[in-house]
Amino acid sequence: MTTSQRYGPQYGPDITFLGVPRCTWSDPATYADADVVILGAPFDGGTSHRPGTRFGPQYIRQTCYLPQDGSRPSLALRVDGLQGDLTVHDAGDVEMYSGDAERSVRDLQEAVHAIASNGAIPLVLGGDHTIAWPDAAGVAQHLGQGRVSMIHFDAHADTGDIEFGSLVGHGTPMRRLLESGAVRGDRFLQLGLRGYWPGPETLAWMAEQGMRSYEMTEIVARGLEECLTEAFAIATDACDGVFLSVDIDVCDPGHAPGTGTPEPGGLTARQLLDAVRRIAYELPVAGVDVVEVSPPYDHAEITSALANRVVLEVLSGIARRRRDERDGTTWDPRQPLLDGR
Amino acid sequence: MTTSQRYGPQYGPDITFLGVPRCTWSDPATYADADVVILGAPFDGGTSHRPGTRFGPQYIRQTCYLPQDGSRPSLALRVDGLQGDLTVHDAGDVEMYSGDAERSVRDLQEAVHAIASNGAIPLVLGGDHTIAWPDAAGVAQHLGQGRVSMIHFDAHADTGDIEFGSLVGHGTPMRRLLESGAVRGDRFLQLGLRGYWPGPETLAWMAEQGMRSYEMTEIVARGLEECLTEAFAIATDACDGVFLSVDIDVCDPGHAPGTGTPEPGGLTARQLLDAVRRIAYELPVAGVDVVEVSPPYDHAEITSALANRVVLEVLSGIARRRRDERDGTTWDPRQPLLDGR
Amino acid sequence: MTTSQRYGPQYGPDITFLGVPRCTWSDPATYADADVVILGAPFDGGTSHRPGTRFGPQYIRQTCYLPQDGSRPSLALRVDGLQGDLTVHDAGDVEMYSGDAERSVRDLQEAVHAIASNGAIPLVLGGDHTIAWPDAAGVAQHLGQGRVSMIHFDAHADTGDIEFGSLVGHGTPMRRLLESGAVRGDRFLQLGLRGYWPGPETLAWMAEQGMRSYEMTEIVARGLEECLTEAFAIATDACDGVFLSVDIDVCDPGHAPGTGTPEPGGLTARQLLDAVRRIAYELPVAGVDVVEVSPPYDHAEITSALANRVVLEVLSGIARRRRDERDGTTWDPRQPLLDGR
Amino acid sequence: MTTSQRYGPQYGPDITFLGVPRCTWSDPATYADADVVILGAPFDGGTSHRPGTRFGPQYIRQTCYLPQDGSRPSLALRVDGLQGDLTVHDAGDVEMYSGDAERSVRDLQEAVHAIASNGAIPLVLGGDHTIAWPDAAGVAQHLGQGRVSMIHFDAHADTGDIEFGSLVGHGTPMRRLLESGAVRGDRFLQLGLRGYWPGPETLAWMAEQGMRSYEMTEIVARGLEECLTEAFAIATDACDGVFLSVDIDVCDPGHAPGTGTPEPGGLTARQLLDAVRRIAYELPVAGVDVVEVSPPYDHAEITSALANRVVLEVLSGIARRRRDERDGTTWDPRQPLLDGR
Amino acid sequence: MTTSQRYGPQYGPDITFLGVPRCTWSDPATYADADVVILGAPFDGGTSHRPGTRFGPQYIRQTCYLPQDGSRPSLALRVDGLQGDLTVHDAGDVEMYSGDAERSVRDLQEAVHAIASNGAIPLVLGGDHTIAWPDAAGVAQHLGQGRVSMIHFDAHADTGDIEFGSLVGHGTPMRRLLESGAVRGDRFLQLGLRGYWPGPETLAWMAEQGMRSYEMTEIVARGLEECLTEAFAIATDACDGVFLSVDIDVCDPGHAPGTGTPEPGGLTARQLLDAVRRIAYELPVAGVDVVEVSPPYDHAEITSALANRVVLEVLSGIARRRRDERDGTTWDPRQPLLDGR
Amino acid sequence: MTTSQRYGPQYGPDITFLGVPRCTWSDPATYADADVVILGAPFDGGTSHRPGTRFGPQYIRQTCYLPQDGSRPSLALRVDGLQGDLTVHDAGDVEMYSGDAERSVRDLQEAVHAIASNGAIPLVLGGDHTIAWPDAAGVAQHLGQGRVSMIHFDAHADTGDIEFGSLVGHGTPMRRLLESGAVRGDRFLQLGLRGYWPGPETLAWMAEQGMRSYEMTEIVARGLEECLTEAFAIATDACDGVFLSVDIDVCDPGHAPGTGTPEPGGLTARQLLDAVRRIAYELPVAGVDVVEVSPPYDHAEITSALANRVVLEVLSGIARRRRDERDGTTWDPRQPLLDGR
Repeated sequence: MTTSQRYGPQYGPDITFLGVPRCTWSDPATYADADVVILGAPFDGGTSHRPGTRFGPQYIRQTCYLPQDGSRPSLALRVDGLQGDLTVHDAGDVEMYSGDAERSVRDLQEAVHAIASNGAIPLVLGGDHTIAWPDAAGVAQHLGQGRVSMIHFDAHADTGDIEFGSLVGHGTPMRRLLESGAVRGDRFLQLGLRGYWPGPETLAWMAEQGMRSYEMTEIVARGLEECLTEAFAIATDACDGVFLSVDIDVCDPGHAPGTGTPEPGGLTARQLLDAVRRIAYELPVAGVDVVEVSPPYDHAEITSALANRVVLEVLSGIARRRRDERDGTTWDPRQPLLDGR
Repeated sequence: MTTSQRYGPQYGPDITFLGVPRCTWSDPATYADADVVILGAPFDGGTSHRPGTRFGPQYIRQTCYLPQDGSRPSLALRVDGLQGDLTVHDAGDVEMYSGDAERSVRDLQEAVHAIASNGAIPLVLGGDHTIAWPDAAGVAQHLGQGRVSMIHFDAHADTGDIEFGSLVGHGTPMRRLLESGAVRGDRFLQLGLRGYWPGPETLAWMAEQGMRSYEMTEIVARGLEECLTEAFAIATDACDGVFLSVDIDVCDPGHAPGTGTPEPGGLTARQLLDAVRRIAYELPVAGVDVVEVSPPYDHAEITSALANRVVLEVLSGIARRRRDERDGTTWDPRQPLLDGR
Repeated sequence: MTTSQRYGPQYGPDITFLGVPRCTWSDPATYADADVVILGAPFDGGTSHRPGTRFGPQYIRQTCYLPQDGSRPSLALRVDGLQGDLTVHDAGDVEMYSGDAERSVRDLQEAVHAIASNGAIPLVLGGDHTIAWPDAAGVAQHLGQGRVSMIHFDAHADTGDIEFGSLVGHGTPMRRLLESGAVRGDRFLQLGLRGYWPGPETLAWMAEQGMRSYEMTEIVARGLEECLTEAFAIATDACDGVFLSVDIDVCDPGHAPGTGTPEPGGLTARQLLDAVRRIAYELPVAGVDVVEVSPPYDHAEITSALANRVVLEVLSGIARRRRDERDGTTWDPRQPLLDGR
Repeated sequence: MTTSQRYGPQYGPDITFLGVPRCTWSDPATYADADVVILGAPFDGGTSHRPGTRFGPQYIRQTCYLPQDGSRPSLALRVDGLQGDLTVHDAGDVEMYSGDAERSVRDLQEAVHAIASNGAIPLVLGGDHTIAWPDAAGVAQHLGQGRVSMIHFDAHADTGDIEFGSLVGHGTPMRRLLESGAVRGDRFLQLGLRGYWPGPETLAWMAEQGMRSYEMTEIVARGLEECLTEAFAIATDACDGVFLSVDIDVCDPGHAPGTGTPEPGGLTARQLLDAVRRIAYELPVAGVDVVEVSPPYDHAEITSALANRVVLEVLSGIARRRRDERDGTTWDPRQPLLDGR
Repeated sequence: MTTSQRYGPQYGPDITFLGVPRCTWSDPATYADADVVILGAPFDGGTSHRPGTRFGPQYIRQTCYLPQDGSRPSLALRVDGLQGDLTVHDAGDVEMYSGDAERSVRDLQEAVHAIASNGAIPLVLGGDHTIAWPDAAGVAQHLGQGRVSMIHFDAHADTGDIEFGSLVGHGTPMRRLLESGAVRGDRFLQLGLRGYWPGPETLAWMAEQGMRSYEMTEIVARGLEECLTEAFAIATDACDGVFLSVDIDVCDPGHAPGTGTPEPGGLTARQLLDAVRRIAYELPVAGVDVVEVSPPYDHAEITSALANRVVLEVLSGIARRRRDERDGTTWDPRQPLLDGR
Repeated sequence: MTTSQRYGPQYGPDITFLGVPRCTWSDPATYADADVVILGAPFDGGTSHRPGTRFGPQYIRQTCYLPQDGSRPSLALRVDGLQGDLTVHDAGDVEMYSGDAERSVRDLQEAVHAIASNGAIPLVLGGDHTIAWPDAAGVAQHLGQGRVSMIHFDAHADTGDIEFGSLVGHGTPMRRLLESGAVRGDRFLQLGLRGYWPGPETLAWMAEQGMRSYEMTEIVARGLEECLTEAFAIATDACDGVFLSVDIDVCDPGHAPGTGTPEPGGLTARQLLDAVRRIAYELPVAGVDVVEVSPPYDHAEITSALANRVVLEVLSGIARRRRDERDGTTWDPRQPLLDGR
């Protein structure tokens, strides 16, 4: 893919995330001043069960009851993560053919790498979790192999070896990523795992890599805040950036029914939003993806709305982090809303 | 509106809240002995996004799997908030034409004022949040301007200035209410705000009014119980009554999908029910509304059922408060169900 | 019902719970080595409101995105509750005609008793809560009248006397069960009750029986863990086994919309899964049922998925309990996932 | 059931069909002047597949966007089938316990017979098709065994012998009815049959009874109008009245998705409405039921709305028939709407 | 409204009908070469029952599975109604506040009139049927009072006098239109009426105006084609243009469930598409609206898709009419698809 | 794929079409006596819009309210298309990875060819329309290139050249099929096309191939029966067998909402069933597929039910054709149901 022409969204009209300006990933001039570039990855060819995440990018972009005016002042953080405090562009989608996973993965990595190389943080809207592999690999391609740590919210480890006889699929991306060397196993943090997959063999492989996976039982017993703090220390040890990958199914199906492989007993939406905000505020985020939103299985668009807010919390957190770094201030979650900043 | 003829529900058959007796708001004799009069406000002309709350009153009235027999003995409080411990009537709806907000607002305030003047607590079933303005204003008309404090559960501040070029709408009622002087800004308590609206200008205006708004971040950090206790002290300082306004979108969309402007990351249904119960039990409630239930966006009627229970918790709390005041007893939430009262 | 021929599922194709082997309840040779036998009870003739639980057994059996291969290694407990660590068979359904409650109840009790007598734990998939009566009675028929205690998760006490003029129905099974002497009133523990039913008369009757019912207000005030621990002590006092009955409506409708009589303000899915796991791991479970899953009212199959996981948590907990008893080990919920066993 | 107290609707508030006056079936004085009495039969214990028809009566009564004012002037027939041209009362529901088919059937027949004996045409809202047996039998009890012919719209013959081991169920009512002698086999007309049930044995039995069943293939090949005309001649030969039984599944699932056993390839809604109107206008209708509307499976209430209109077409047709008999006039379907009467 | 700034869509991102170019209605230079200008009227404040049509314009614009590329070659007519054979622009929405019907109606008429005056055919996407009044009046304002005839597809006459105490509402627009003199009563053709509204008084008023209304009974008896031919003769007698108003509820609810007041027994989608095509091809269309599409009540977007195709059939019909007029050719519906043109 | 082990269904438990016996396509001995072998093709990687057809095979297999007993006596044709009159086996699914279209297509063709070579008619359940290419090619591989004609029901021509940059996809299969020479262009019959795709260039290519495509306008104008008769003559001219490919979207979205690219204005379900029956009865069917059923977009399973009946009509038609050929009899669609055979 060498053209500098904007492809636009693959499904539906050419809109952008809540109305931020358009850009073209292959034409760096179009996003020269952007802090973050949003990219859609409308691919669901890798899902092992319910498809539909191909429509994720378009729904995440626009599911909001407020005007699509490219501005969202955060009540909690008192910054605008879309304009003023941060500059965000939307590069449209990478063309991804769900029937051709290999080419889709390759093209996506090229786009992510281009954005990272040109100085912006790539924020990718999935799509199924297959895309986490090219997303994080694209960032590592820029920052250096093994220089990116991973914080991965998910009900599933996504570390399977072969799925449906293929090396590419939404249950395998994290294994591909580790095997490629892009991300070190001992800088790979998982939160929210639960249920009955994978089996002992894969768990043993994960342990060998030095991965640290927080199953929901541990999170409930110790508290999410404590687990996050522990994970943050690992993530920032000898790494230059953090890739944040949010599979919406980390939340309980009551909060996120619109997904492909819902596993009961997850986080609340509130917990996820608070956790994502802490990460964006406290860590040097170098890349992000939000995946596995499947609109056909959603109700009243509550899952798409949650994913839209996950994106906004990331952006607001980054914006606030930058402002506080600049101003030497600190954000206090206990401060009353109307007490000024 | 001067006729003393009952209008009945605007949409569908003439039913009452879970079967309580009918009355006519303009004919005080029909509710002479009532402690509470329920009134429907089937208006959704003010909503800025998804409509449908016009069907709120009818769904809230009847969404319950138990017989519609005008009786609901509370397990938690051991009183019957519909009969015996409290007398409740249902005045049907005020005719509200969604295409004519001004007249609708005026007529509703007249009805609310009439009920309050005649000695009953008005409990209004919305409709969109536009109605909070006439609801609280109608009560203040009776108790005295500035003598009513407001406790307002909502994801949104509803303090916008102009919406779609109009002074009337569901994003503006609280501003109208403050500007009218009916409720003092420094007796205006908001709980559950979150998200990305309004912007700094409106927040500054709110701060100027002396409002106290508890954003979800503060609520999570400090705990809801502590925030409520703090708010209760403000609400009862130099006021004669409390108006309780519950926008169902204060709950997380997972618990209340059937609403017009769902904002992820809200309270659980359990938290809302417990909070509302405390308010009704601990404070001198002078008026209530439950708004923004939009049945077309609901699933399996779970949002309507929640709103029905919010109403019942209010009624049960008032009933228990009155009994305890009379008997000199106190309610203990830790008491086992089967240990007598 | 005296034939030894397998009846199979009443609605739809002949499948088994996630692919475990088939057996026939009336032919003990077919499940000679089974620790647990699953039985479907597709009956909704007893429900007082929304029907649909007749489809519960088929949905609970197969609602899972993983292969139906008769194996589910638990991440939390590190055992496989379906094979290897525990042997589970599925006897299909008992033929239950929703229009003939009496015969259905009688036939179900016969099947449950047969399974228990032949040394396996019966695990019954409902169906409405009517079936708890024959389920627990069938187990008591084997263990001895009054030798089985009951732990009952539910929003409703299910202790009504007469429902719609009939002695049989989903609001009455617990009364029938106590009256029959199968379960002692003072070994009858209820968790999760809430709402507005039953009234004082029935509560008085429950108190007379010595029942212990934890309403949600008490559970919130004291914490679920503390209540469970207290209940466990009662349940194991002078009883030989515990019957666990899980009405899915104990969860909040946001987590379990697909049920007949949803009552807002319930447990989260996470709380239920953790509680059920503790029971299976800490107590001598002699019988189980999971009831009131109504697929027609579900969304994206999240309620069926939750019920499927409730079953798996029970099975995994029993498997781990047996292994730890054998090995003299103990399960630690704080242990990281990848730290070996 | 001997009380003369009105039972009211079994599920939900006490409403009537589009607001017509209430009456009590066991108290003839309450409907002394009624031409037609509507009765609800909220029973779904007999259905062999999807339940939910217990909510049919309440949905059919009120699914209409016009005011529930007890008046519906027909554009096509220029009469008001609810008031003025015909007097209609609503007796509420017969209490029907879905878990006890035998008693439910017995009680319903008693009510239908009482209404017919007192000079009104009973019009029963189902419920599943089980009720057609007591409905038609109750009318025959009044008019005389074998003096009532049957016109039966249905995708299914409902002439099975035993269903789920029971003699009572929605697949067997027509056989019960014939065996009882209430309706003669050679005055039994069926329209709209299709699909793959029943098998040859049952078809042979039906042929022996002299039944006349119009399968959809014949209806398409010959035209519905011709088939109806032929059927009318049989129905009025040596009979004193016609019982019209409309199973909503006679329509294609595209027009009536909210039903228990949808069979593709049925009539359009338009065809059914026109056919029902002809019957009510041209034949001496002595009883009616409209069955198998299952609201949980409906979408946007289109099936309930269709059933509501089927009832109104029957009532309008009867009203117009009576007026034309009185005035010596004839209805012309080709007459323009605004050409006066 | 005097600004020449494009308002854009009121709800959601700024998209256009299937990707056609943008224009601004108040700035004629932006659509100087347009044959047709599309305008959204997102108003549902006038609906008497289910709201939701405010989202109609956005759904109608984009509900299509093909690329939003501003081109749609018609298989049936072999022209492209969006580009090449016809030039179409989309002016976005007129800002319509559902709580203020009067102002909304006034602003819409101004916009429609502006478009018509500037030489383009206005094609308005509703919105509820209230908008037909300003739509047709705006066209008549340009062509001359009484010089426009009306062809109106609808289940309802929309000729009520007062609705909910207001002169403005979706049941009254046609009366307003006639009373204003914009359209002559004897050039007012209605097709598809059915059901039970309005009553005799209103029908008498309609007859007095000389209206010609084809109720479904007449349409079935005579055939739709014959009725259309008859109507065409009236519509073109002493008029300069035809306004085509399509209420999607003219179709059966099975084909168009997503609407506010569904009336069973309507046209099929196929019939409507063919009829609309004939009108656009055979008559001098001067204005069009497509109304009453309510996405919240739709399923799988089939109603929005139908409305999108109604628009395309109109545009394709106009395009083919112009080409045939230019080339002296005639369209033959029996011509095989691949026989060239 | 060379193993003779049965793969079983890819999604969900191992069931068969309505309970017919299992077989393995790679092991001819397992279906030596079968007339027809059913094969699932759960692939949706080729769809250009809404996915979900991967679940088509499982839903089509079991969506039926009757027992899954491997028997379906047809009322219309008086044969049992599943047993007795025809022997049908179900080979489960071919493993199809939606992310790898090329391999999926290759494996499917191998399976279809194997079945045809072994003397059974392959009947493939899709899956998106991509599969029509390997389906028909697999049959032609057995019968001879160009010796199979195609009858193709579809809203879309599926003759695109390149879709999303790939040669494989559901809009291109028919082109691939023609280009391969498997099916001759002048023996390629399409019925039900409509809408706005493809454009003139592709239509010209189709004309060059000698294809005969019946657009809905021609079908309405001439009548479906006449078009079918004409098509039958072409299909049987110099060909040895007919491949019947049914895309469920040939039906109107009101009858078949659960599909990926719904195009308004299609056939009714009744028309499709009658047409398919005629083909199976009158022509030498050599292979069949039923595609584009997308359960996530379905409502109340009406689309799956329709597809299930399409399969049954094919099987019943073949069975009756064979019996009539054997007995020298003829089927008469006008014969009354109960007049014997």
